[in-house]
Amino acid sequence: MSELRKDPVVGRWVIISSERGRRPTDFGPEPVRPKLTSCAFCAGHEDKTPPEIVAGRPPGGRPNTPDWSYRVVPNKWPALRIEGELEASAEGLYDRMEGIGAHEVVIETPDHAATMATMPLDTIADVLLAFRERVLDLKKDGRFQYILVFKNHGEAAGASLEHPHSQLIALPIIPIMVEEELSGSAAYYARKERCVWCDIVRQERRDRRRLIAEGDGFVVLAPFAPRFPFETWILPDRHRPAFEESDVDDLRGLAGVLQDFLRRMNRLLNDPPFNFMLHTAPLHESGLDHFHWHLEVIPKLTRVAGFEWGSGFFINAVPPEEAATALREIGP
Amino acid sequence: MSELRKDPVVGRWVIISSERGRRPTDFGPEPVRPKLTSCAFCAGHEDKTPPEIVAGRPPGGRPNTPDWSYRVVPNKWPALRIEGELEASAEGLYDRMEGIGAHEVVIETPDHAATMATMPLDTIADVLLAFRERVLDLKKDGRFQYILVFKNHGEAAGASLEHPHSQLIALPIIPIMVEEELSGSAAYYARKERCVWCDIVRQERRDRRRLIAEGDGFVVLAPFAPRFPFETWILPDRHRPAFEESDVDDLRGLAGVLQDFLRRMNRLLNDPPFNFMLHTAPLHESGLDHFHWHLEVIPKLTRVAGFEWGSGFFINAVPPEEAATALREIGP
Repeated sequence: MSELRKDPVVGRWVIISSERGRRPTDFGPEPVRPKLTSCAFCAGHEDKTPPEIVAGRPPGGRPNTPDWSYRVVPNKWPALRIEGELEASAEGLYDRMEGIGAHEVVIETPDHAATMATMPLDTIADVLLAFRERVLDLKKDGRFQYILVFKNHGEAAGASLEHPHSQLIALPIIPIMVEEELSGSAAYYARKERCVWCDIVRQERRDRRRLIAEGDGFVVLAPFAPRFPFETWILPDRHRPAFEESDVDDLRGLAGVLQDFLRRMNRLLNDPPFNFMLHTAPLHESGLDHFHWHLEVIPKLTRVAGFEWGSGFFINAVPPEEAATALREIGP
Repeated sequence: MSELRKDPVVGRWVIISSERGRRPTDFGPEPVRPKLTSCAFCAGHEDKTPPEIVAGRPPGGRPNTPDWSYRVVPNKWPALRIEGELEASAEGLYDRMEGIGAHEVVIETPDHAATMATMPLDTIADVLLAFRERVLDLKKDGRFQYILVFKNHGEAAGASLEHPHSQLIALPIIPIMVEEELSGSAAYYARKERCVWCDIVRQERRDRRRLIAEGDGFVVLAPFAPRFPFETWILPDRHRPAFEESDVDDLRGLAGVLQDFLRRMNRLLNDPPFNFMLHTAPLHESGLDHFHWHLEVIPKLTRVAGFEWGSGFFINAVPPEEAATALREIGP
């Protein structure tokens, strides 16, 4: 049984997910993750995951058999479950909601040892198309307001399995970070009648000091006020609110700039663990003039400590101008 | 040269602190910290820190000599510097500010091997009094809006030295997490004419399922919607907006409940790394009806991954009712 709970002061929701299998007494200073003797995401082990939702297969291929190029499966230990009514209730001054949602895993390739920096471009494009397909499908479920697509690569970045995969979580509410981007960009639009990310793209292309790469419809840049060293944003160079409205050419372009960036990052920073997160418009507001979808990539290089957790204020020892220069110069 | 920069979308400030001594190429997957052969915070090494600001000494003791019980010194590698004018400027659509502030370290005891769970209660009370003294002194500097007091214990929680110490950072702006608490609690007060934390204290004392301990003017509780497993809040049981208005008895009471909690946490979770952060009213708004100071303690047990960084939404596998029960039952 998982549930959503709202902090009564700041309005931040959390998922309390006691189903995920750990008891209070299981906690040591660092989580111990079982080392699998064989990988549930490798070809031939299709019975070790829940039955697949979609997959890339040659014509006539049967579901849940080998011979796939990518697979989307429900997460075996979902943070939220798909069955049930979306009921809200109170407990004194507090608010809670049933933990309804969807939690899916995109197994990117049968090749256990591949990474997004090394796999063929077509494979990355297929993964991006799978994200789009799943968003378009889950959008039909009126209980969901938002879908977060993300990737954890490497144990220090929160990945529990090393086989290349990404995830998506469909949520019954819009998460607070996206709410903050929506309200900030709406306020900017109200003053200027321009999308703030379009203005950022224009200024960074002119200025060039924080520009890492551009082309195929995208810009790759080090943001002006990054929380983390080498934090990087990838944005469409024209105004595009909703990721799921991208066409095949857009996503092939994204596959190329994403792989180019990951190769630069790996050469400069020695294959660091990393996360990426897709920020797109809420499911039922895909035509917004003030929202511009973007992918945020964060190499996991530093530890977050008390000052950051207590203030929301991040200390970053690498100016983005230096990060962008180093990433530009090292080449892909 | 450090500077403050504001994200143009969400308004979050970050500190870009390139002085702190790392270059882009110094980054591996995890930061390498120099292991000191001798500890700069131990007695007899007073010349290895910047000259002290205040210290606990017997009458007639000379500054920067041994024979102290606690010392407050400027951070040798400050995130912000104290000298200079607070100048703001623009860069196109972006905002920046000079990195003016204060960054001090409270060396809690000469005993390298002590921890807040084991040191004498008088020592913890002296540390809390030192926090109060430094806040009252820095408050006179009109450039500062907020002071964050915090502690990183253990390398995984961001501590770079193991000798017991805490820190404070004086900031020229109010950090976004405190702003969120201020605006959330002001909205609650506008509706109810009550402090939301006073209501939380009342409800939790009646309900008892999330109450860990109480007494000496404080309650210790597992919050209803915690971001992290075993996240714990310590609050005065009556309405108190500003930490620095605590009297000696208040701080002795806090020392007792804090040590009691840390002992429970250490027994249950095997001496985990942890952070604590003090949330108090902004320096020049100490009489607020809607703000209630509190100490947040977070054991570092899990990794934060892409979903959390991308959404601000946290997945917590330990319901606070279970955490509180385990912490109550294990005893101090």
